[in-house]
Amino acid sequence: MKPIDELRQWMRREHLQVTIIPTNDCHFGEYVPAYFKVREWLSGFTGSAGTLAVTLSDAALWTDSRYFIQAARQLEGSGIVLMKQKVAGTPTIAQWINEKCRESQATPASFAVGLDGDLFTADEVEDYRAQLGGIPLTLFRDPFDTIWAERPQLTFTDITLMPERYAGMSVRDKYLAVRNHLCIEGEFAMFVTACDEVMWLCNLRANDVEYNPVALSYCILDNCGITLFCKKEKLTREAADYLAAQDVKVCDYDEIDDALSRIPGSVPVIASGGLCSARKMSILKNHPMVKEQVVGGTIAMLRACKNDIQLEWTRKALLEDGICWVKLLKYVYDNYPSGELSEYSITRELLGIKRQSPGYVGESFEPIVAFGPNAAAAHYSFDSEESSAKVTGSGFLLMDLGSHYPYGTTDTTRTIWLGGEIPDELRKDYTLVMKGNIALSQAIFPAGTRGCQLDILARGPMYATGKMYFHGTSHGVGQYLCVHESPQIRMEYNPIPLQEGMVLSNEPAIYVEGSHGIRTENMIAVRHYMTTGFNTFLRFETLTMVPIDLSIVDFTLLSEDERHWVEDFNRTVFETLSPRLEDDEREWLLNYILR
Amino acid sequence: MKPIDELRQWMRREHLQVTIIPTNDCHFGEYVPAYFKVREWLSGFTGSAGTLAVTLSDAALWTDSRYFIQAARQLEGSGIVLMKQKVAGTPTIAQWINEKCRESQATPASFAVGLDGDLFTADEVEDYRAQLGGIPLTLFRDPFDTIWAERPQLTFTDITLMPERYAGMSVRDKYLAVRNHLCIEGEFAMFVTACDEVMWLCNLRANDVEYNPVALSYCILDNCGITLFCKKEKLTREAADYLAAQDVKVCDYDEIDDALSRIPGSVPVIASGGLCSARKMSILKNHPMVKEQVVGGTIAMLRACKNDIQLEWTRKALLEDGICWVKLLKYVYDNYPSGELSEYSITRELLGIKRQSPGYVGESFEPIVAFGPNAAAAHYSFDSEESSAKVTGSGFLLMDLGSHYPYGTTDTTRTIWLGGEIPDELRKDYTLVMKGNIALSQAIFPAGTRGCQLDILARGPMYATGKMYFHGTSHGVGQYLCVHESPQIRMEYNPIPLQEGMVLSNEPAIYVEGSHGIRTENMIAVRHYMTTGFNTFLRFETLTMVPIDLSIVDFTLLSEDERHWVEDFNRTVFETLSPRLEDDEREWLLNYILR
Repeated sequence: MKPIDELRQWMRREHLQVTIIPTNDCHFGEYVPAYFKVREWLSGFTGSAGTLAVTLSDAALWTDSRYFIQAARQLEGSGIVLMKQKVAGTPTIAQWINEKCRESQATPASFAVGLDGDLFTADEVEDYRAQLGGIPLTLFRDPFDTIWAERPQLTFTDITLMPERYAGMSVRDKYLAVRNHLCIEGEFAMFVTACDEVMWLCNLRANDVEYNPVALSYCILDNCGITLFCKKEKLTREAADYLAAQDVKVCDYDEIDDALSRIPGSVPVIASGGLCSARKMSILKNHPMVKEQVVGGTIAMLRACKNDIQLEWTRKALLEDGICWVKLLKYVYDNYPSGELSEYSITRELLGIKRQSPGYVGESFEPIVAFGPNAAAAHYSFDSEESSAKVTGSGFLLMDLGSHYPYGTTDTTRTIWLGGEIPDELRKDYTLVMKGNIALSQAIFPAGTRGCQLDILARGPMYATGKMYFHGTSHGVGQYLCVHESPQIRMEYNPIPLQEGMVLSNEPAIYVEGSHGIRTENMIAVRHYMTTGFNTFLRFETLTMVPIDLSIVDFTLLSEDERHWVEDFNRTVFETLSPRLEDDEREWLLNYILR
Repeated sequence: MKPIDELRQWMRREHLQVTIIPTNDCHFGEYVPAYFKVREWLSGFTGSAGTLAVTLSDAALWTDSRYFIQAARQLEGSGIVLMKQKVAGTPTIAQWINEKCRESQATPASFAVGLDGDLFTADEVEDYRAQLGGIPLTLFRDPFDTIWAERPQLTFTDITLMPERYAGMSVRDKYLAVRNHLCIEGEFAMFVTACDEVMWLCNLRANDVEYNPVALSYCILDNCGITLFCKKEKLTREAADYLAAQDVKVCDYDEIDDALSRIPGSVPVIASGGLCSARKMSILKNHPMVKEQVVGGTIAMLRACKNDIQLEWTRKALLEDGICWVKLLKYVYDNYPSGELSEYSITRELLGIKRQSPGYVGESFEPIVAFGPNAAAAHYSFDSEESSAKVTGSGFLLMDLGSHYPYGTTDTTRTIWLGGEIPDELRKDYTLVMKGNIALSQAIFPAGTRGCQLDILARGPMYATGKMYFHGTSHGVGQYLCVHESPQIRMEYNPIPLQEGMVLSNEPAIYVEGSHGIRTENMIAVRHYMTTGFNTFLRFETLTMVPIDLSIVDFTLLSEDERHWVEDFNRTVFETLSPRLEDDEREWLLNYILR
């Protein structure tokens, strides 16, 4: 029987006419553990975003433009209709359900819709309820342990200590900082649902989710302190001892519901509506809910602002990153003439280089190695060795790579030109992307400035040629944590101002479909610049230590100041890395930045 | 008897313990006609912003930091306490009233507060109600016709036609454009309360409010068309005939309440909460209220986007403006050596020059002529001929001037240096302000870009020196209408995107208290630049035709591109103005831009 028909069998038993299957886990993280990939199992569609709606006779899958081609291919023959999000004429999920109800000539009251209350936020469920009108919506608990015979296990890996010498702050001090920011007098309880927030708060790391060094876990903060909910037996001795010494109470992962229901009804609760499941929220429904004073959440804000020790370790991670990049770039240039390189072989090589890097833990996201027109897809990946492009002939090679070290996370993109003379238009595009990167790097701005106010600096140079990119300019980067953190620098308004210690990416880009893709990405940190009678001013420190190819720059488009900036940058990269490079690598790097 | 005691006598008769007196008229415009200056009459404080609260024994006046010094002086001996807004420890008006209630040992229910429902918006009244707790709030009608013996009359001036050859659009077409933007099917009524919106919609102008060429008036739009409420007898024959030909129904100004109450209860009403009085809103309270789809209001949006004919006439206004400026600048430079110039004499001269300008109607705001440290106040004005500063010795002379012509409104600021060599720091500040002005002028940006995304271009250059200004970078400018229109370019987020045809100011500045003030302000228009596969891109056209003093620029701080821009600008000014200048003026201008 097809997976989707197994689901229908269960729906009949449960008297459900419709189920809605999202792409989420119960912590609403960016990456979904295999255990939660129910939508993929049911539909065969492997993309990272999509929602499936299933009736007893029909099914449809909603996904966004990144996946239209892939989803169409993977859904072929499945009987599942592809619904293209944000395309005119595409119904919403609720509209589609209403239509199916009419078609079946059922009364709305009898057309029961079910969804897993652990995988939708309270806000999402409320939206569905409003849009479904008279059709009843019920929340069910995950039934797939029995329906899905080959279901992968939930992985619980060892939970290790992030020592204070890396974190720069004790858990006790973090608890006090959170309380201080909350500004609550009297009793309170704060429910922390995002795994990376729990990890930051408790100075822990693990490996439960691909690319994200987190443990599936929750926390409750209250007037007495922190209670951590995780697989207790997975805590290393060192971690358990530290938590005990910091007065963190540890409970089992499965005890969270009980603990929530035991919070006295009079105690105000702080929980993030966007990160808390409808079912968890329903346990808390009788409590006064307190809105956080800090937009985006107190813990997300504190986590975003790295202290001096964290910054120092992040620089160290970027030093190791830089050394790997030099080896990789040298490998690519040395081996390109052989005609044997492919996106696949370069990826294999870079993983080999990284495994030699002292302390390297793993990748912080799936490596992107894209040649020629492939680089025009911002998040290109190849399916297999065979389908990866040969890196021969001429074209841009775009590589976007990130690593985890026990003390820091990296994210760097470089685009290099291979094969013969670069055409003028491509040279110009490359230079405009670099100008944007330099302009944001050099920005000086008063305290209180928001990301959307700075965004134009990265985009402005390319606007004059009528080009732009459709992703954010910048995202926050964790410290041996998720490579995508809030806040971001985007065109869209976000009320969180940039603050000292925030670590961000700086990644302007140009993508021309069918032709080329260029992205230059450095990591930057917000630092104090000066305080005057007018205000406190901030600026960025560029943290990344990977050389930028200047041989393909159109210098007539750079101001003297910009030229100095980028030449100084390459010189700093050389001086910083060279003590750690082999002789031939050092020589290669010197030639590279001087050519 | 003191005015405030006359008010108290009336309060006793009306059984009111407190009254709140704002600085508003019933259309909530920027300038308040003399008839409505009740707060000034009661308190003696002449500033443009402030709210007075009066009990039977006490009184207090809330105003903002611009007026702390002036208000303290003017309130001296009045018994009215000055309340400094946004200063720590200052109570809100509601807190002060609650305190007075406690002091008087009255029960809250007996401590009746009254305010004029025509002078507060519905939102404001709701806020007061919420904050006053158990203290009852009643709305009264303006009682000052009897209390204030010498009250100025409401001025109703002739209402003239803004011919279509200036407006570029018939009233009928404007009506259709509004309906088109509203996207409402079925019956509706739209209540237009802002006088400048009425003027724009009906192609009318008048002179009822200082500096703003508007008539006190309302409109109601419904499925049948436009009904205008104004002093009918003040319509010129030409205007009345035009309105009749365009099917605009004209009622008397005083008939608006009746008309509102006659809108059938089932008809949805569109009215701007921020521009509609609590009393007017209470007449409409049983109607379904429709939220406008366009942020800031459909009419404000349509009015902001000038058509090609309006732009052409705005250029013409700025040509006349430029000629006046050349005469004024020449006068200042010629007469400065005499040592006889003062802020007052320069203001008198500029008004004289303008009166000679063909078609000149009047000023669009109070002229600012500020010398030396006086220019550090962004909105400086002198009280009298005697108190105005002598323009002798060395310093910056800042002049911010605007005119109305029957076809356009202008707003230009220039800062020039008088007397000897300019100190390096001031030369640098002047150059940084100019760099900001040039950067915004040269911006190219995709459709959908908002003001707050461009703001950094004007501010960025001065940030590196730790300086900034605390007002917006830009405001919309009307066409022979209010010199301050929405939208604006500010640091603060405003969801309205910049759109083709919007006419704005561009006015970065540096103010150093006790030392100097610099502002360079041009008017700019949003124009189409190009449409590519990526997006439609917009850019600015600089409309102002007044030379910029380059003799005090630090050219080492300008890029080649910036230098070209500003030299080209001055050359364009010369070429545009010179056919209209006298020989000596032309020669002077040529020397000025070449020196």
